[in-house]
Amino acid sequence: MHHIIVISDSFKGALTSIEAHRAIADGVRRALPTARISEIPVADGGEGTVAAMLAAAGGESVTARVCGVFPGDMVTADYGVLPGGAAVVEMAACAGLPLAEGRKDTAEATTYGVGELIKHAIARGSRRIIVGAGGSATTDLGCGAAAALGVRFLDAEGREFVPVGATLAEVQRVDVSEARRALAGVGLTVMCDIDNPLTGAHGAAHVFSPQKGADPEMVERLDAGLVHLAGVIASDLGIDVAHVPGAGAAGGLAGGLMAFCGAELEPGIDTVLDAVDFAGVLADADLVLTGEGQIDGQSLSGKVPVGVARWVARHRSDLPVIVLTGSIGDGIEDVYAEGVTAAFTIGRGPETLESAIAHTADNLTAAAYSIARMFGVMTRGAAGAP
Amino acid sequence: MHHIIVISDSFKGALTSIEAHRAIADGVRRALPTARISEIPVADGGEGTVAAMLAAAGGESVTARVCGVFPGDMVTADYGVLPGGAAVVEMAACAGLPLAEGRKDTAEATTYGVGELIKHAIARGSRRIIVGAGGSATTDLGCGAAAALGVRFLDAEGREFVPVGATLAEVQRVDVSEARRALAGVGLTVMCDIDNPLTGAHGAAHVFSPQKGADPEMVERLDAGLVHLAGVIASDLGIDVAHVPGAGAAGGLAGGLMAFCGAELEPGIDTVLDAVDFAGVLADADLVLTGEGQIDGQSLSGKVPVGVARWVARHRSDLPVIVLTGSIGDGIEDVYAEGVTAAFTIGRGPETLESAIAHTADNLTAAAYSIARMFGVMTRGAAGAP
Repeated sequence: MHHIIVISDSFKGALTSIEAHRAIADGVRRALPTARISEIPVADGGEGTVAAMLAAAGGESVTARVCGVFPGDMVTADYGVLPGGAAVVEMAACAGLPLAEGRKDTAEATTYGVGELIKHAIARGSRRIIVGAGGSATTDLGCGAAAALGVRFLDAEGREFVPVGATLAEVQRVDVSEARRALAGVGLTVMCDIDNPLTGAHGAAHVFSPQKGADPEMVERLDAGLVHLAGVIASDLGIDVAHVPGAGAAGGLAGGLMAFCGAELEPGIDTVLDAVDFAGVLADADLVLTGEGQIDGQSLSGKVPVGVARWVARHRSDLPVIVLTGSIGDGIEDVYAEGVTAAFTIGRGPETLESAIAHTADNLTAAAYSIARMFGVMTRGAAGAP
Repeated sequence: MHHIIVISDSFKGALTSIEAHRAIADGVRRALPTARISEIPVADGGEGTVAAMLAAAGGESVTARVCGVFPGDMVTADYGVLPGGAAVVEMAACAGLPLAEGRKDTAEATTYGVGELIKHAIARGSRRIIVGAGGSATTDLGCGAAAALGVRFLDAEGREFVPVGATLAEVQRVDVSEARRALAGVGLTVMCDIDNPLTGAHGAAHVFSPQKGADPEMVERLDAGLVHLAGVIASDLGIDVAHVPGAGAAGGLAGGLMAFCGAELEPGIDTVLDAVDFAGVLADADLVLTGEGQIDGQSLSGKVPVGVARWVARHRSDLPVIVLTGSIGDGIEDVYAEGVTAAFTIGRGPETLESAIAHTADNLTAAAYSIARMFGVMTRGAAGAP
C-alpha cells in the first residue's frame, strides 16, 4: 500500500494550508483509493500555530490569564503542550494585531503577555518552549516578554521599567542575570520565517510598524529606539543583534528573545517537522506532495516545500518531493537543488490571476490526481508488476 | 538506460510538431542525460505529411508530373515510398490551397492530380497507398482523383466528363468497374482527422468551402452538388456516403475515394503509428511523452495524444503516457479513460493566451524536465536502487 505524505503551505489569497491539504488529498484518493495519506498541518508562527502544532503532533491545550496587547489589558490565552513536553506559545494569542481591536498603537503595545505564557509553561514543567512570532501588534524588541521573564531594564536614573516601542530609547542598562537563572535548562526557539534584521530600512520599524499604526514620524522614532537598545545590548550583553537575519520578526520579539533569553531562531517548518518526528514519518513513505501559491528562488527562505525537501534530502533522498503551485517563478533551479524533485503548476490553461485563485482548490485536486495517477503507473511499471 | 518516446501534436499557433519534439527532448535530456529518446514525427495528412512519414519510417521520395489545382495546370509533385513499399501521397502536393496561388475558386478546382499520383505509385509497384487529405483547395468529392483512376462520370446525355465542384449536379451515372479492376489488390487508406460528413450544415461545402473562396451562394450550390452526387452514388453503387463521419474531409476527397475506390478512412496518427511499427518501438520503452495545444473531450477524435495512448493501452498498458498541454478542458476524464496516464499544463502561472503562446517552447522544455526528473526519481525509488 502506498504511503503518501501531504504537507502544503497555504495558497495566499486562495486556500489555507488545511484547505490545500484537503484538496490535494481528494485528488490522491481519487487516483489511489487504497493509499495511506498522512496530512501534516503546518504552522508559520502566526495565528493558528498552536492549533496546527497540536493537530500535527498531538498534545494538550493550556489556558492562562496574561497581559494583553497594551499594558494593563488582560486576556485569556491558550498555548499548547506537545506529547514530549515542549510548549508552543503563539504571540498572536496575547500580543496579536487583531487583539488590538482597532487601537493601532504599536509604540505602546507590549509583548509582556508572551513572557507570562512562557513563564507559565516553564512553571508547568516544560523545558522546551517554541514561540510563534507572527501577527504581532508590537515593536518593543521583546522587552515586555523579557521583563516578564525577569530581565531588568533600567533608565538613566537607574529606575527599572518595562519598555514599549515609544520608550526603547530610555533604556540605559539591561540586566539579564535573574532571567538567565530562571531560564537555566530551558531551550527557547522562535519560529521565524522572515529574514528582516532588527533595524534600518529592512528592519522591524520601517517594514512592519506602519501596518501596526505607526506614522512616518513614529517609524523613525521606533527605529531610533531599536538602534539605541541594540547598542545597549551590544555593550551590556556583548551580543550584536541589530543585523541578525530574522531578529526583526514580530516587532523585534525574535531578536529580543535571542539577546535577552538565549533563544534560537528557526524556520517554522523545521520546528513543525521536528515536533512531528518527520524523519520517522518519512521512513515508510513513498511520495511527498507539497504546495505553495508561488514557488521561486525566494522559496528557499523558510517556505514549506523547500523546508520539507531539505528534510527529505537528509533522511530519505530516494523519495520524490513534488511541489504543486499556482506559479513557478525565477530561480526554480535553486529549489530543485534543495531536494525538490519537480514542481508543477496547477492552472488548467491561460487565465487571469482572479480566475486562477477562484479555481485553486479544484485545480489542486486535479493536479494531485494527475501526479498520483502518474506515480501509480510509474512505480508499478518499475516494479515490474502488472 | 531509460528509453523515452517523444511524439507530440503541434501546439497550434505556437509550435509545429517537430518544434514541440525538440522542446520536449531538450527537457528530458537535461534531466536524464543518458536516456535514449525516440522522437517520432507525426503527420495529420496535411502539408508535410510525406516528409514526416519519411522522417518517421524511412523510405524514398518519388517525383511525378501531374495535374495541378485547376484542370490544365501541371505541377511537379513528390510522394513517398516507405520501406515496406507503401506509398504516401499528400493531396496538398498537387491540389493544396497554397498551390492555387491566390485563385480561390474551389468550384473549379480538381483532385485529378491526386489520382495521378496514386496511379503513379501503383504503376511503380505499391500495393498500399496512404493519402493525406489535408489542406485542399477542392470541393469536388474526389471526382478528379477518381477519374484519373478510371472512374467514369456521365452526364444526362451519357457523355463522360470530369466533374468539379461547379458541375457535380450534372453527374447522372457513375461507372466504377474499370477503376475497380485497376485497383484490385491495392489497399487505399485516407488519413482523416476530422469528423465532418460530406453534406449539410457540418459538411464539406458549408464548413470548409468558404475558406477556399466560395461565397454564400456558391456554398449552397456546392452543397447541392454534393447532395446530388451522393444520391447518384447511393443508387449506382449502393453506398451511403453523405453522412459518414470524415467523408467531408478535403472537399469530399475522403468520401469520394471511399465510395469510388473502396478506400478506408483512418485517423492520421494511426497511419503514422502503423507505418513506424509503433508496437515494436514501445517494446522496450519506459515512458511516453506526448503533447497538444489543448486537451479535452474533443481530443478523442484523431488527435495525437489519445491515438498514442490507445496504442499503448493495446500493446504496453504498463507504460505511463504523459500529456503536456497548454490547456486542459472539459472531458479530460474521457481522455484518461483511453489510456492517458496524466495530463499536465505547461504554463508557469496565470498569464494571457498571448504570453502563453510566446513561451510555449520554454514552458514545454521546463515541463518535460519536471516530468523526466520525477520519472527518474520515482522509477529509481520503486526499483529500490539508490
